[in-house]
Order: sequence, then C-alpha cells, then structure tokens
Amino acid sequence: MDLDRQNHARLEFWFDFGSTYSYLSAMRIDDLAGKAGVEVTWIPFLLGPILAKWGWQTSPFNLFPSKGRYMWRDVERLAIAYGLPFHRPATFPQFALTATRVAMAAAEESWLPAFCRAVFVREFGEGGEITSDADVTGLLRAIGIGPEPWLAAARESVVKEALRERVSTGEKRGIFGAPSFVAADGELFWGNDRLEPALAHAART
Amino acid sequence: MDLDRQNHARLEFWFDFGSTYSYLSAMRIDDLAGKAGVEVTWIPFLLGPILAKWGWQTSPFNLFPSKGRYMWRDVERLAIAYGLPFHRPATFPQFALTATRVAMAAAEESWLPAFCRAVFVREFGEGGEITSDADVTGLLRAIGIGPEPWLAAARESVVKEALRERVSTGEKRGIFGAPSFVAADGELFWGNDRLEPALAHAART
Repeated sequence: MDLDRQNHARLEFWFDFGSTYSYLSAMRIDDLAGKAGVEVTWIPFLLGPILAKWGWQTSPFNLFPSKGRYMWRDVERLAIAYGLPFHRPATFPQFALTATRVAMAAAEESWLPAFCRAVFVREFGEGGEITSDADVTGLLRAIGIGPEPWLAAARESVVKEALRERVSTGEKRGIFGAPSFVAADGELFWGNDRLEPALAHAART
Repeated sequence: MDLDRQNHARLEFWFDFGSTYSYLSAMRIDDLAGKAGVEVTWIPFLLGPILAKWGWQTSPFNLFPSKGRYMWRDVERLAIAYGLPFHRPATFPQFALTATRVAMAAAEESWLPAFCRAVFVREFGEGGEITSDADVTGLLRAIGIGPEPWLAAARESVVKEALRERVSTGEKRGIFGAPSFVAADGELFWGNDRLEPALAHAART
C-alpha cells in the first residue's frame, strides 16, 4: 500500500491536444497543484468522439464563428495575463491522434507532463505543427526521450483500445469539454477557469 | 455635457433573463463595479434569436444534457460561494419576453437594476415563475413600481422594435452568450467568470 500516495489529495486533469484552454491549464497546473498540496494525474484524451455525438464534426470554435473569434481573443488575453507565449496556429484544430496515443502509452512515465507541455507549446506557444510522426518524433527528442519505441507503441492496438476506453470513461464521468478536472469524490470542473476551484476542492477532500 | 458621466470608466452588462450565469452576475455587478469605480449600463436582451441562427431552438443546457447537468451543479456551487440563494426552477428556460420588454421600456429608469435583480431572484433564487403578466406585475409591485404603465409599454410596437434592434446591436458587437460585458473600447468579455476581468479592463480604459 502506497501510503504517501494515499496521503495526497488528488485531481485528474483531462485534456485534449487540440484545445487552447487545455494549453493554458497544462502550463499552470503543476505549479498550482504543488502549492495546493494536490497530486495531479495527467489524462490526455480525445474530445472529438464525445462532441461528434452532438453532431459536431469539428471544433465548436469553427462551427460557431462568433464564439471562435471570441475564444482566440480570450486565450490571447489570458496568455498575456499568465505570462505564457501564444501564437495562433495556421490549422485549428490540429489532428493529434499520434501525439495522444504516445501520451496514452506513456501514462506511467515520469516525463508525460513534460511531453504534453512540449506538444502544447509547439502548437499554441509557437503556432507550430504537432500532427505528423516527424512532429511527434521532434517533440519526444526535445524532452530527451528516444522516439522510436513510443511511436511504435502508438501503433499498437492495445494502446488504441486503451484510448477508446479512456474516452468512454471520461464520458461516463460527465466530461463534455476540455480541460476538465475530476476530484477523488467525482466532482467535475470544466474549463481553465475552474483549475483553481478544482484544486481547492481536491485539497479539501 | 455630463462631465461626471464622462469621468467614469464604463461597462455594458448584457444579460438574458433565462440565463443562470446572468443571475450570478446581476447579483454581484453593482457592488463590484462600485469598488472598481466603473459605471455599469444594464442591457437586458434576448439571446434566443442569436442562438437560433446556430440551429438551437432552446438552451444549449437542454440540447446537450451532459453540459446541462454540469451547469446546474456549477451554478449551485458558485451560488454557495457567493452567498446567493439558489433554487432550480421547474421550467428552464422560462419565457421572459414580457419581463424583457418591460426592462427595455425602463432603460432610463433608476429602478431598472432593482427590477432585473427581482426577476432573477424570483427565477433562480426561489425557483419561481417570471413569465405571465401577473408574474411581472408582482415583480414590479415588489420593488414599489406601479405596474400598469410598464405592462402597457411592453405591448407597444416601439418597444418591441427597440428590443429587436438591441439584439441586432449585440450580435454586431460579437455577442453569442450571456452574460456578456462590453467595454468602451469594444473589448468583449463573455460569462460570469469574466465579470471581474471586464471591470478591471474597463477601469483601465
């Protein structure tokens, strides 16, 4: 029994690599969680299959242009407020299946958060590409990880199936957006705005 | 020239009587704006005609059940945090055309914010009805206003047309949700979460 793990308050951080607001949370959560005494589990998932059930075949920020225009301005304002780099990518949302499967395969690796932050910074901090195998290879190398076994893992059916299971689990927990935060008691918080309240809730429970 | 008015930073508060998050802002904005030195213009409008263009014939919180379940829990949590009463009404969203037209007609009246708060408290603080002429009559009486001329005004075509114009103006400013806040420089903020940042922005401009 891992007593140290049990003694920590815990929070699940569910995020999608295509989500701008997930970027804002990914860059802040470890620092804020450390201060709050909360242990975070990073859970990359795919929001697309959940929103597709609402009939949405792409991001709501593309489907609803006024909402999209607002989002880009809002994220820019928040990035400035947080002191984070921000550069709108040419393509939105980017297809991030390989990166997500690599992150799924790396669930138990200590470098998972560093990899995820690298993906987000490339995408929304620099406006760069994260889709191709070459992109993902570069991102793994950039954090000092040999890419070959992880790209191979991303092609394994057990990893693909685990990711499908994860999406299904998220849906069962009530997740419909990203980022989302789930406390040990099941309490759900949605959106980068709710990172601080979610941590405060987790610290109390 | 009204120098006193010019010397104040200003913020437009756009809200819809059917919106739970508008309730949370309506109950807080005057106090927070006073502290920030910002003069607020209360602008009741109808979000429905804007969302109808997206193909949404009712609230997204009804169209997308997981989002709706989350919203009710989130609003309940926030109401507790703000010390506001909260009671989920049997009907959601309520048809608030008469109340909105009365508020439109009362744009220049000093009691407009009091009336709007009364509507919101009846609806989301007590879970009561705000739709019928009798409901609106009761709400006007409750704040010490003789209801007859205002219900008559709500039936005048000039008021109906002014409300349609207002919705059109809101759409042109980029509004797609409620509450929204528009600063004098046109900067748009959406959602109860953005009340404080919107006031801070208005105070700087």
